[in-house]
Amino acid sequence: MARPNLPATTRMMERLDALALVTDEPGKITRLYLSDAHRRAIDLVSGWFREAGLAPAVDAAGNIHARFEGREPGLPALIIASHIDSVRDAGKYDGNLGVLAGLAVVEELARLNERLPFAVEIIAFGDEEGVRFPQTLTGSRAIAGRFDLSALDGRDRDGISMREALAAFGLDPDAIPSVARKPGSVIGYLELHIEQGPVLEAADEPLGIVTSIASIQRFTATVTGEAGHAGTVPMPYRKDALAAVAEMVLAVEREAQHAPGLVGTVGRIEAAPGAINVIPGSVTFTLDLRAPDDAARHALVRRVLAALEEIAGRRGVTLALEAGYEEQATPCHPAIQAALARAIESLGHTPLRLLSGAGHDAMAFEKLCPMGMLFLRCKGGISHNPLESITEADADIALAAMLAFVRALDPAKLAG
Amino acid sequence: MARPNLPATTRMMERLDALALVTDEPGKITRLYLSDAHRRAIDLVSGWFREAGLAPAVDAAGNIHARFEGREPGLPALIIASHIDSVRDAGKYDGNLGVLAGLAVVEELARLNERLPFAVEIIAFGDEEGVRFPQTLTGSRAIAGRFDLSALDGRDRDGISMREALAAFGLDPDAIPSVARKPGSVIGYLELHIEQGPVLEAADEPLGIVTSIASIQRFTATVTGEAGHAGTVPMPYRKDALAAVAEMVLAVEREAQHAPGLVGTVGRIEAAPGAINVIPGSVTFTLDLRAPDDAARHALVRRVLAALEEIAGRRGVTLALEAGYEEQATPCHPAIQAALARAIESLGHTPLRLLSGAGHDAMAFEKLCPMGMLFLRCKGGISHNPLESITEADADIALAAMLAFVRALDPAKLAG
Repeated sequence: MARPNLPATTRMMERLDALALVTDEPGKITRLYLSDAHRRAIDLVSGWFREAGLAPAVDAAGNIHARFEGREPGLPALIIASHIDSVRDAGKYDGNLGVLAGLAVVEELARLNERLPFAVEIIAFGDEEGVRFPQTLTGSRAIAGRFDLSALDGRDRDGISMREALAAFGLDPDAIPSVARKPGSVIGYLELHIEQGPVLEAADEPLGIVTSIASIQRFTATVTGEAGHAGTVPMPYRKDALAAVAEMVLAVEREAQHAPGLVGTVGRIEAAPGAINVIPGSVTFTLDLRAPDDAARHALVRRVLAALEEIAGRRGVTLALEAGYEEQATPCHPAIQAALARAIESLGHTPLRLLSGAGHDAMAFEKLCPMGMLFLRCKGGISHNPLESITEADADIALAAMLAFVRALDPAKLAG
Repeated sequence: MARPNLPATTRMMERLDALALVTDEPGKITRLYLSDAHRRAIDLVSGWFREAGLAPAVDAAGNIHARFEGREPGLPALIIASHIDSVRDAGKYDGNLGVLAGLAVVEELARLNERLPFAVEIIAFGDEEGVRFPQTLTGSRAIAGRFDLSALDGRDRDGISMREALAAFGLDPDAIPSVARKPGSVIGYLELHIEQGPVLEAADEPLGIVTSIASIQRFTATVTGEAGHAGTVPMPYRKDALAAVAEMVLAVEREAQHAPGLVGTVGRIEAAPGAINVIPGSVTFTLDLRAPDDAARHALVRRVLAALEEIAGRRGVTLALEAGYEEQATPCHPAIQAALARAIESLGHTPLRLLSGAGHDAMAFEKLCPMGMLFLRCKGGISHNPLESITEADADIALAAMLAFVRALDPAKLAG
């Protein structure tokens, strides 16, 4: 196992550090879609694409894309991609790693003068996180032909619509549909991403193969009881909205512990009026429920909502539910999973399989082509946070696995 | 029981309506200590004092006070008082009722040319709620000789100290100690206040005799777990600060249900980072615990804190507690309670006894003289809210009871 690090690995780590300095908020990593930092990131990343001998272009959705041609020009392409936008106060690796890993793979092939029986297209999507506008996955949806034009009317917190922001960025919103790849032109989609969870670290493995991207449903719940003076309303007279919600939070936790792969989270809570000496009269909280597949998610939602209603009824408070974001499970293609497993095994590692609880650009491609994802171990499972951390050794194993994957990939078998 | 309403009752209700229009926030009742609305309230209420034939004066703490002399001038006085400041967006009756009821009692005595074997001093305290400055009960503490001069350094949210605000109001902060009544000059203290709770309404009684003002302790608690992605951290790996706090909220509720008279409230809660898709890493909440006496409060605090620590330990989160406001229980004087009971019985009502879970000006007087409080039924137990409501019929019974009380009061028996 005394394989020396790939030359591309150190360069990739240095580029990840350099890209982390491109931000809308000095001192933090915050890179929102179509912001000034996004433009500077496009310039920086495009320059690296050119250094690798590629001819990058920016499309109508603000994605950077470039083709590394195969044995002959114009062959169908394997897309290796991820995003370069970020949440506010983000880490260095979420998204950026997958983009620069794609570039590193191409650089390594170019360095060795290798040509594959397919093209490799590398893409840096401009929006995955959906922090600025209501929609997520804007970039990948555009490329995969799943962009909904109504998203152009979504507005940011300053009231600027996506359409206006694209135009101000010098892009033509009406050209977004033309960005879509034609079905026959893409043989597959691969994305490397940090795990954002603790499973690989706990298993002591650098890489994991994603089996599917979780089925998600979100709600906003409002419980209304009766506000009252904390000193003068005896306990038996109370309809304390927060006490009711406390039971609900524990019910969400209990139901999500019902089977492996389920998760349930109450991330936001607000109690009104919110004074030290007033019994909360109403509480609003959010609910995020995920499961490996849609049937399991529907069952989880059913059980959680039944528990919430039972609690509300028993305590004499009212429960109002507003359904929010919903996403069906996206299975990764078995042939890509199998090919990734062979690549990982060829490096002497165990092809661990795990669920992605988070959404990713890869989701947009499921209908267009065989899609797969590789997860990289990250320290403490921490993401969306300046403390995001990976090791150069792990990054090198990821690049080696991706190279082994593309070298062994048979487009005919994927199509079959 | 076909007693006609007292002439003073309708006038008192009209004055309460008029005083409600004196506000710092148009459209709401908000009257903060030493504000412009406070000055207008002093002018309005002083005018009513003069209409009753009294000679009101404003003291160095901003209280209005006036004496209705007894059978001879200079006799020791029964103080009947309450406050004219309010919380933000308050109701009409909290505080104001007690002041104008005192005035109504004096007007009724004056109308009938009755003189008592003691003087009646009526006072409108300028600050009870403590909304503007960190200290509460400023007015009553000054009169009762319990004003702590360090309170003058407390600042409002604009950075103005109480000392500066008093000076700007035309008052001399250094003269506040001279406002204190001498022990022998006061025979007792009586305060009428809306109940602010549902007990009298549930019992179908207009009046209640307060047995004691509750023992209170407050805390601010911070629970720290581990933030994480709502999708990618499996349930067994979580240290969800909000799930831990949910258990704690229920423990507070459970422990406060342990005996009648105990109350426990979590009124404020904040979860960080507070995003729909992030497991809360830390949660801060407030804790307000009250009991009829100090021993019961100490026992409640002990049980609650033990439960919180057990939950934190079991869940692997940390609990940091900051002790806040603490107030010992203030018993109402047995002789005043007995005299109030006789007055209520003389009107054909039941002398219901109940605890005051809220603090009141009366607390400041416990060490100076025999102190007692009368609670008036209020609609739905609602207070600190524009929906505060009492009936004129109940107000009339309260005035009749107060008149019966002062007419029967024997200063010699109180002193004994």
